[in-house]
Amino acid sequence: MAELSESAGIPVPTIKYYIREGLVAPGQPTGRNQADYTEEHVRRLKLVRALVEYGGLSIAVLRDLIARIDNPDLEAFDLLGAAQKTVTQAKDPRPGPYKDRAERRLHDLLTERGWRIRTGDPAYRTAVGVLATLDEVGRQDMLDVLGSYAEAAERIAEIDVGLVGDVSDREHAVEIVIIGTSVGDTLIASLRRLAQASVGERLYT
Amino acid sequence: MAELSESAGIPVPTIKYYIREGLVAPGQPTGRNQADYTEEHVRRLKLVRALVEYGGLSIAVLRDLIARIDNPDLEAFDLLGAAQKTVTQAKDPRPGPYKDRAERRLHDLLTERGWRIRTGDPAYRTAVGVLATLDEVGRQDMLDVLGSYAEAAERIAEIDVGLVGDVSDREHAVEIVIIGTSVGDTLIASLRRLAQASVGERLYT
Repeated sequence: MAELSESAGIPVPTIKYYIREGLVAPGQPTGRNQADYTEEHVRRLKLVRALVEYGGLSIAVLRDLIARIDNPDLEAFDLLGAAQKTVTQAKDPRPGPYKDRAERRLHDLLTERGWRIRTGDPAYRTAVGVLATLDEVGRQDMLDVLGSYAEAAERIAEIDVGLVGDVSDREHAVEIVIIGTSVGDTLIASLRRLAQASVGERLYT
Repeated sequence: MAELSESAGIPVPTIKYYIREGLVAPGQPTGRNQADYTEEHVRRLKLVRALVEYGGLSIAVLRDLIARIDNPDLEAFDLLGAAQKTVTQAKDPRPGPYKDRAERRLHDLLTERGWRIRTGDPAYRTAVGVLATLDEVGRQDMLDVLGSYAEAAERIAEIDVGLVGDVSDREHAVEIVIIGTSVGDTLIASLRRLAQASVGERLYT
């Protein structure tokens, strides 16, 4: 395990924790206090760390994901959908008039863009919550440009889906969905801020 | 305070907590156990809740932000920059060859897009960390489309900056920067997922 820790650049206690939590398979025992680890272990360890550090995923969410990946009965396309939903934290809106208005607004937007409407999806529920909140704090200006944000989001989704490629390569496809969605959010958020600073300066100075 | 709780739709203990943490000003005392609250209190309460619930901001970050907003000596443009940096959580990359390569890659990208390079910015440090991580887990495919993601991020930033409008309206400008950046991330992330599902279906079914 000391060698594994060296190769992956991850401390032994962290490795033990990931194994205990079922995120990484234990090594093949070769003696009393010895076990063999493969390249696969190094890869999985680095993946788990990436998802925790830059994907904002909790250990519980990761455990759920890994169980799906390791379940060979799940069809590739279903697995991708499940993976995408799992990395999406749902924030349910409070019931009330703001929520109702947000739901109508989102419905109109999705219809306009020809996006599928699945009201149970965590992303749908979160979007309703965000729209209700923006309405409640009086940010009508942001709601007015919702269509432009959606257009930019669709452009990002096209890049995302282009990366998935051949879905029959199950392991590759699901890895790109998980990393692309979760770590991708952090990437886009940081690029957005870097761009804001420059676009803002161009405009105001 | 019971009336304030009713108007804002926020429980009394939460209001007390926000006041204790300095996020919302206490009311004007009118008696032993009475205080007057204004519309401004209701607005601020809803804003704080929105930022906590959908902006993912911690109480500590919010306290820091409020202190800046309430400081009249800060110039509007500096305030906006400070606000934008404050809502950006920096995740520093681990030193090593992946980090060095990520820094060169980001440098090239920023130069190519004509974005300003400020290596101390939290968004810069986070972007380096994400790029290093993607490299480390072998996601060269995501690094290859970095330019496309940056283009989409710039489009989003243009919408963002367009919303700020007149910076001399300090209160409005800073509110839109804070909400737009933090709650905006959640909005974009949820729209991205809604779009992914539809773009993916169009392609694969």
